[in-house]
Amino acid sequence: MKKIPTIDDVLEARERLKDRSVLTPLIESPALNMLAGARVLVKAECLQRTGSFKFRGAWNCISRLSGESAKGGVVAYSSGNHAQGVAAAAQIMKLPALIVMPSDTPQIKQANTRSYGAEVVTYDRATDDREAIASRIAGERQAVIVPPFEHPEIIAGQGTLGLEAIEQGAERQITFDAVLIPAGGGGLTAGNALAFSARSPATKIHTVEPEGFDDHARSLKSGKRERNSQTTGSICDALLSPMPGELTFSINQPRLAPGLVVSEAEVKRAMIFAFENLKLVIEPGGAVGLAAILARKIPTEGRNIAVIASGGNVDPRLFADILSGR
Amino acid sequence: MKKIPTIDDVLEARERLKDRSVLTPLIESPALNMLAGARVLVKAECLQRTGSFKFRGAWNCISRLSGESAKGGVVAYSSGNHAQGVAAAAQIMKLPALIVMPSDTPQIKQANTRSYGAEVVTYDRATDDREAIASRIAGERQAVIVPPFEHPEIIAGQGTLGLEAIEQGAERQITFDAVLIPAGGGGLTAGNALAFSARSPATKIHTVEPEGFDDHARSLKSGKRERNSQTTGSICDALLSPMPGELTFSINQPRLAPGLVVSEAEVKRAMIFAFENLKLVIEPGGAVGLAAILARKIPTEGRNIAVIASGGNVDPRLFADILSGR
Repeated sequence: MKKIPTIDDVLEARERLKDRSVLTPLIESPALNMLAGARVLVKAECLQRTGSFKFRGAWNCISRLSGESAKGGVVAYSSGNHAQGVAAAAQIMKLPALIVMPSDTPQIKQANTRSYGAEVVTYDRATDDREAIASRIAGERQAVIVPPFEHPEIIAGQGTLGLEAIEQGAERQITFDAVLIPAGGGGLTAGNALAFSARSPATKIHTVEPEGFDDHARSLKSGKRERNSQTTGSICDALLSPMPGELTFSINQPRLAPGLVVSEAEVKRAMIFAFENLKLVIEPGGAVGLAAILARKIPTEGRNIAVIASGGNVDPRLFADILSGR
Repeated sequence: MKKIPTIDDVLEARERLKDRSVLTPLIESPALNMLAGARVLVKAECLQRTGSFKFRGAWNCISRLSGESAKGGVVAYSSGNHAQGVAAAAQIMKLPALIVMPSDTPQIKQANTRSYGAEVVTYDRATDDREAIASRIAGERQAVIVPPFEHPEIIAGQGTLGLEAIEQGAERQITFDAVLIPAGGGGLTAGNALAFSARSPATKIHTVEPEGFDDHARSLKSGKRERNSQTTGSICDALLSPMPGELTFSINQPRLAPGLVVSEAEVKRAMIFAFENLKLVIEPGGAVGLAAILARKIPTEGRNIAVIASGGNVDPRLFADILSGR
């Protein structure tokens, strides 16, 4: 079992990320407040470097490497956002990066990953074992694997988002009653669980997942890690991990409230709402928290709720189709 | 001639807008910096209350009214963004609002204006005189007219955006070499000209306009107010004023560098760039500044440039078409 990160690791990560990551705004919309009968504050992490929160964890991990310790650079497997985070962090560190990506990942994510100078190798999400592919390549290259969530430095890096949100809330005299976090492997959730449980213990922490990929909701209910029956078939490409991580779940389980689940139609409505009212481009997987608010998956009336909009890397064609109601 | 506002009016407006307007973020994108060979900072005013800067001026004006001084509420004429700003400000002040809007204004702007409780009357942009219609209605109702730009309080309110941008730049040790401002009637430009000339006098102030509606560029060149030959026929619906205002031009003329002009294709490219790289929804008229950077209308290499993305109220259908390359 890996080292379990603590709030101190999150605080250290914040120092490391200073001047590297964007202090993304916490956005409040009168229209959204009115709809929810609550104060809803959206942490617009789609405005982060590389378009998602993944740069935080990637930089916290990769900035510790040296040419000595990572002769062959870094290798990662990712549906796309972690890929971009790793590629951008490696580029800054002048380390070569190779990313193993599913072949059905959005084009924008593949193109962006290459634009940061990384090499991309694709695999079939339904049949291939991405960890095995990455492991083989890393061995051949003497490269360091940067996993998407099962890693203390990755988790601590993602937790910096929660620290910021708590402080940005406090600046407005807000203590959050709840925070809604999109969950795939549970790394963002684990980092934020560390931050909120230490610095805002009254805040209820909810994962939000798409229907059919509700492994966290079921695992939290049963008390053990449950697997999804499929790994493809949702527009929420960022949230299709097969099951909660061992490390992430050990952090999340004692700290989380029940998990929430939203439908694809609810996700699309949330993306349109964000377009019309927040003027933000949020990708499907990043919009599940907002979807949960709009579809009233938890009581909102009179509460203060933080919603993490975790990324904005969506293909123009899919976005156009969703806006057009297709 | 109306009272000419000064930097003191802008500072006073800022106090008045505190806790009412959003302190919109100044966004920096590594991708944009790399493309421009410059530090480009985008003031994301599309994230402002009502989706554009217009709430600033409207609130600065309308918050001074009382039931006594504005028995019949307020009346405004507007292509859509000022309409929403006025409607939202009047709603907060519990004053009735009636807005005279062109019939071809984006549906989202009409719907949003009504959603703030305002009554909407439409007119034909090509043939009707909107000021005459507004004037008649205001007379009948004993209402106060809130003009879109020819008003010292409106201009001072819009200038608060510039104050914020200057301070947000200073927090990052940046003094701007230039600021690019979308120009219709010149109210946003005039407010910002007051702010920058007082607080950042080294910054070159450029208006940006769509081709065919370059009244500011031509007026600045000739030294007198020049009229556009048409008032319809651009996707930049927010920037189609017939000519610079008398008051706004008297402020702008001595303070401005030459005006910049962009094509419709350049505007669309900028909107797509903002979608892909900034994750911001920017309306056509709000994207002209970014378009000017991407199309290299001024030298950027090695400079620090502020770009005002003045609004994000664009119909989903048009946005989808632009994303799809139509």
